[in-house]
Amino acid sequence: MSQPRRVVVVGASAAGLRCACRLKRLQPTWSVQVVESREVFSYGACGLPYVLSGDIDSLEALRRTSYGLIRDVSYFASHKGVEVLAGWRAEAAGEGRLRLVGSEGERELEWDELVLATGAAPRRLAGLPDHPRVRCFHHLEDVAPLKQGLIRGEIGHVAVVGAGLVGVELADAFSSLWGAEVTLIEAAGWPLPGLLDREVGTAVARSLEAAGIRFLGDAALESLSADDDGVTLKAGGDTVLADVSVVAVGVVPDTALAQALGVELGVTGAIRVDQHLATSRPHVWAAGDCVESRHAVTGEAVHMPLGSLANRQGRTLANVLAGRDDAFPPVAGALAVKAMEWNVAATGCTLAAARRAGLDAAAAWVATEDRAHYWPEAKVIHVGVVWERDSGRLLGVQAAGEGEVAKRIDVATQLILAGADLERLAHLEHAYAPPYAPALDPLAVAAFAALNHEEGVEALPPFVDLGDATVIDLRLAEESQAQPFEGEAEGIPLGELEPDRLPDADELVLICQRGTRSAEGVRALAASGRRARYVGGGVAWRQVGGEKN
Amino acid sequence: MSQPRRVVVVGASAAGLRCACRLKRLQPTWSVQVVESREVFSYGACGLPYVLSGDIDSLEALRRTSYGLIRDVSYFASHKGVEVLAGWRAEAAGEGRLRLVGSEGERELEWDELVLATGAAPRRLAGLPDHPRVRCFHHLEDVAPLKQGLIRGEIGHVAVVGAGLVGVELADAFSSLWGAEVTLIEAAGWPLPGLLDREVGTAVARSLEAAGIRFLGDAALESLSADDDGVTLKAGGDTVLADVSVVAVGVVPDTALAQALGVELGVTGAIRVDQHLATSRPHVWAAGDCVESRHAVTGEAVHMPLGSLANRQGRTLANVLAGRDDAFPPVAGALAVKAMEWNVAATGCTLAAARRAGLDAAAAWVATEDRAHYWPEAKVIHVGVVWERDSGRLLGVQAAGEGEVAKRIDVATQLILAGADLERLAHLEHAYAPPYAPALDPLAVAAFAALNHEEGVEALPPFVDLGDATVIDLRLAEESQAQPFEGEAEGIPLGELEPDRLPDADELVLICQRGTRSAEGVRALAASGRRARYVGGGVAWRQVGGEKN
Repeated sequence: MSQPRRVVVVGASAAGLRCACRLKRLQPTWSVQVVESREVFSYGACGLPYVLSGDIDSLEALRRTSYGLIRDVSYFASHKGVEVLAGWRAEAAGEGRLRLVGSEGERELEWDELVLATGAAPRRLAGLPDHPRVRCFHHLEDVAPLKQGLIRGEIGHVAVVGAGLVGVELADAFSSLWGAEVTLIEAAGWPLPGLLDREVGTAVARSLEAAGIRFLGDAALESLSADDDGVTLKAGGDTVLADVSVVAVGVVPDTALAQALGVELGVTGAIRVDQHLATSRPHVWAAGDCVESRHAVTGEAVHMPLGSLANRQGRTLANVLAGRDDAFPPVAGALAVKAMEWNVAATGCTLAAARRAGLDAAAAWVATEDRAHYWPEAKVIHVGVVWERDSGRLLGVQAAGEGEVAKRIDVATQLILAGADLERLAHLEHAYAPPYAPALDPLAVAAFAALNHEEGVEALPPFVDLGDATVIDLRLAEESQAQPFEGEAEGIPLGELEPDRLPDADELVLICQRGTRSAEGVRALAASGRRARYVGGGVAWRQVGGEKN
Repeated sequence: MSQPRRVVVVGASAAGLRCACRLKRLQPTWSVQVVESREVFSYGACGLPYVLSGDIDSLEALRRTSYGLIRDVSYFASHKGVEVLAGWRAEAAGEGRLRLVGSEGERELEWDELVLATGAAPRRLAGLPDHPRVRCFHHLEDVAPLKQGLIRGEIGHVAVVGAGLVGVELADAFSSLWGAEVTLIEAAGWPLPGLLDREVGTAVARSLEAAGIRFLGDAALESLSADDDGVTLKAGGDTVLADVSVVAVGVVPDTALAQALGVELGVTGAIRVDQHLATSRPHVWAAGDCVESRHAVTGEAVHMPLGSLANRQGRTLANVLAGRDDAFPPVAGALAVKAMEWNVAATGCTLAAARRAGLDAAAAWVATEDRAHYWPEAKVIHVGVVWERDSGRLLGVQAAGEGEVAKRIDVATQLILAGADLERLAHLEHAYAPPYAPALDPLAVAAFAALNHEEGVEALPPFVDLGDATVIDLRLAEESQAQPFEGEAEGIPLGELEPDRLPDADELVLICQRGTRSAEGVRALAASGRRARYVGGGVAWRQVGGEKN
């Protein structure tokens, strides 16, 4: 590929522009053109919820470089040497050609290499009314009507359908600054079901409710109608009345052009590419939200429409097109989202996803401080760890709480990508200082719980129904008083636990504040031949959203 | 080791207690005793500077568990089944025996397995006066006199000798809450020279000075005298008068007992142990601040007295003693410290250390936002990356700034431990969301700068003296006006850079705000046959501590 080539990229968002700009740098003599159907492009779409919330002043901020220039056609021409043809829809037009259809007519474009960076569009639910009170949230122009409605005080109650990443961000945006009443409606039993298992997910739901958001789980949308007075939603047996409804039930890859070109799609419905981001058609490549990736844990094809992956794919594809040796590696699927006061992040597989993929997986849960416990700003975070039983291989980590979780998920991501096992996680080296971390990082603490579990110190899931189990509360009397266990329990502080002087029962369930003492208690009882299990994450986890934690 | 054994641990801080408590859990029938020369033990020593500063209310907070119990003799007896003999100094007394010397006399203790967890003590400089105004800072009892002096207003000016981790924490503590004048005296040219190369180190020095701390670099202590009126220090040609002086020039491993037992020390002066933490003497083991570790990058023996490593070694040694298959792995040396408004952290090797170890190493520097640049709380951080030239292997990362750096160093640590190269770092997967990270993480941006460097887009170090180089400032006019470049430079915004219309010079030096645009400029000029280099980290880095950044 050393002689000058004509490269046409379709789609001017993260993947397409990154690819185009880098390729032009690496191969300055090549022609690199980007075709984009919209007039306004290259904005940080991930920032849109924060414009709605007011965290970010204006939409324009999302279009600016860090030094203040608007990323428009002339910016890309002058700074990057890349011609962006904005306002032109690309259609297939025979070998090596595209037909562009715009408001001013049609034109043709010739290419030697074609890059499909056509992105994704919001998934539309069938049968929804076409009414201004029923909205989706994906593009720049989706922000203004909602924000104006909020400013004018016309939106007092919002129903957000779908508690995925965007749904949760929207609930946060509507509620935190504008004080709108928000009902978050989700078909699964907890928010962010793609990222989180029930244990962390339920904690997030409770934290959202404590922050004033109504979470309606196990509530598949049954009907949605709108008129001048508002919207009416029926979901999970409930009826929700709201001023406006935003439907955020995920995105679907835009593959219209790919299909017109005869490019094969994968099992996910997104464009199938190899590790060099080549499609099934020679000289046609694809990157960003329209392609599928390979999951590092399951090896399965997955559709992960994330700005960070799109960006990296754009860079990789530029390298490949420029003739460099590069490949896009499998992804662990690291994700983070702010949910009111809580930070939520996850990587790898949930327990549910691991089992669906046929893995013999288990999970453990801990509640632990994100910094030295004596540091005044230390916050409890909730961590779930998923592993493969036989090998001990780390499959996934989920974390949520007011403390620092996103970067810990980044650490876990590297371990998952490296195929690390629980012992490796238990040996975690981290930069310890009281303002940043405890001497044992929460990730290591989670590994200890998992290793304990494998050694028979078995944790029950945090929200398990204890029914009529014989429960021993190992906390100090003052702790039990300050944050009572919700059921019947005999209080015996760990320091006074004597195996011979315990209630007569086949099995005991131990509970404490975070799970640490009760895990120790289980081991001590086992040494005396008493069978016990403990409640993972302890009272701190079970009572998230309660009066005191 | 399955029949009951008598294990004696000498030293009741992180390594010794962790080892003892875990071993007792794993082998409940064994006798596990801990001998400690001090009456008060098991406190979070890493928190001492924050008790001084007032961030932490009281010394007692450091001794409490997260649920409020004081970790004293009775706590360890009742909760852990471990007997702590506090106030007894251990001496060698023939095979399998220790002599304990205490205020109440002497006694003997028999052991089958002996664990040396004797820790480290502050390094003492020769010839310092024994005077209450000349202090060190290591133990619990070092806090009160200084804090009382501050409370009574008797300490208005403090001279801290040594700008290592403790020195920097002390400078922060004295200055931030108490408003004491602080002079931080360091033999090297910048603070934290063990962690940081000159580039990041100088930025930290400037940030300390902007926060009101006087940093005196290249200032080896020549003399220190004290009388009733104050202390007088001469260092680097300067004379510093202060009310009190705290000498914090590192620690030395306490190896007295080890040496008396005939245990071999390593090249660092600390106890040499194998990966199972066995010393040269059968049945004698060691862990914590008194042992040396293996550095993951250089393979050299290093002495790293860190609470987090001590804790992990204690766990490993308990596993080994209990008969489990475990080993303590090489360490990357991850470290973090709060320095007034800045967070500072590093892992792996500095450029200087890598070269000392005989590695052909290079470094690159970037200044970049820690979150999406449009996120209102985004802060610039300064990142240095060190790699091996031939292999591209990642050798070290240093980061500092108001933004999040400690956890990014944790991510880099995993990559270094995995032997990752720059391409791997450039492909970094991270949990992206605007409130937590930019779409391209600063670590990936640092990798890009390093890869650019390897491709001939060469960065000059951030604080390089540009002498009479021909400098082109690629920023917009308003940027240059807001934060002027300190020397002579022709202003040509990147978008207007035309290779044919540039000053006549053999080589140009390009500068911009962060280094990104000037790196692009260098590549663009190279395509036209013009030789140029750029200033890594740009004006943002050169002018840390200036009026606006």
